[in-house]
Amino acid sequence: MTGLLTVVGLGPGNPRFLTPSASEALASATDIVGYGPYVDRVPERPGLRRHASDNRVELDRARFSLDLAAKGARVAVVSGGDPGVFAMAAAVFEAVDNGDPAWRSLDIRVEPGITAMLAAAARVGAPLGGDFCAMSLSDNLKQWEVVEARLRAAVAADFVVALYNPISSARPWQLGAAFKIVAETRGPGTPVILARAVGRPDEGIRILPLAEVETAMADMSTIVIIGATTTRLIERPDGEESYVYTPRFYGMRP
Amino acid sequence: MTGLLTVVGLGPGNPRFLTPSASEALASATDIVGYGPYVDRVPERPGLRRHASDNRVELDRARFSLDLAAKGARVAVVSGGDPGVFAMAAAVFEAVDNGDPAWRSLDIRVEPGITAMLAAAARVGAPLGGDFCAMSLSDNLKQWEVVEARLRAAVAADFVVALYNPISSARPWQLGAAFKIVAETRGPGTPVILARAVGRPDEGIRILPLAEVETAMADMSTIVIIGATTTRLIERPDGEESYVYTPRFYGMRP
Repeated sequence: MTGLLTVVGLGPGNPRFLTPSASEALASATDIVGYGPYVDRVPERPGLRRHASDNRVELDRARFSLDLAAKGARVAVVSGGDPGVFAMAAAVFEAVDNGDPAWRSLDIRVEPGITAMLAAAARVGAPLGGDFCAMSLSDNLKQWEVVEARLRAAVAADFVVALYNPISSARPWQLGAAFKIVAETRGPGTPVILARAVGRPDEGIRILPLAEVETAMADMSTIVIIGATTTRLIERPDGEESYVYTPRFYGMRP
Repeated sequence: MTGLLTVVGLGPGNPRFLTPSASEALASATDIVGYGPYVDRVPERPGLRRHASDNRVELDRARFSLDLAAKGARVAVVSGGDPGVFAMAAAVFEAVDNGDPAWRSLDIRVEPGITAMLAAAARVGAPLGGDFCAMSLSDNLKQWEVVEARLRAAVAADFVVALYNPISSARPWQLGAAFKIVAETRGPGTPVILARAVGRPDEGIRILPLAEVETAMADMSTIVIIGATTTRLIERPDGEESYVYTPRFYGMRP
């Protein structure tokens, strides 16, 4: 088959973070498929077909894209951040694994992007400077018991933890439950970063001690980074925002 | 103070992965500081001062850069991948935290980049499609007992695990020890990805079952990704390389 499907990471919502490689993939596509706001980020041009959908039909969107590629199209499936991190790439491969055997002959590529935790971390310092875990807090695709067990394991082993999909109107209590689990073993002063819409005009970033964090401060577009016991604030003069970082050293002095 | 220090993520070793934002930071710098091969990636231009060092003096390099910035320079500290992930950003903030109080007034920025695990994952499919941990296997900065405890926790909770700094001539046995720990609970068929120099001419990528992995297949430039129990291979016709991915679903059917 001659078609091509590329899952393209758009990075945080600012073209300054889009890699040249991802830009080229978009420029050579015949069809753009994705969640409406992501499709809107791709400039119009003659002959480019745009297929926007809502955010909750990832497998359908993956199958539709594979079908287009199988017919010979050059399809770009657009994804925020990095497509391989709680985004569209896994959905595309799930569809291949469970779908039309002919799809296995397709050329399927993934263009990496700056995922939300990296963009958020960069805005405040280096909170991911030590070992860290990235988890989706959604219990739509796995049971809450799995989320809870993983979070307890990560906290007990003193990883920094980045939480994707922390809250939504359909999942209102999970983030509060997660903060409670963390507070069982980490101190009330543990730095927590809530970063919303990094790089966009409506960006909002807060750094708070664990004891002062409220779930109402987060929404669907927020990434939450919870410090390890070693994560530190660097206070700055003249009312400047503090830096937050996790030293590379652990239980040893530099 | 008017100086500026930006820690710039160069991504994997190919300018196609360098973000426009990082390119601008390099273009507006007066001084480039970093490990020689990274400094070499920045094009020469008149008036640009280049300060290359070896790879083992991160704190000294950080202090030197802060000192330059405090004198009014626009310094770009270059780092492979993302500077916040086992790279230079944490070293810079450690130096600020423990150094000249005047450094706290400096404008210090971090330009995120495509870190090795994202680039490697994109090359083979979507192995980071579920929850995952990123760990440095180096015991230069933390004790081996800490590394081992974290790895055991991550494996027990069925995270995908990305191992940075897996092996070096000074640390020859740690990767083998890590594979043994993983093999205590994960099956011999668990997919392991060894990705070396992604995006560079000397790129080398292997996907192997855990039982067939040998530490000699990795070196300092390799990132190792160990699948979860749910990570799957998609075999392809005509001798094409398999895709590898971790479904978003866990213990539930799509």
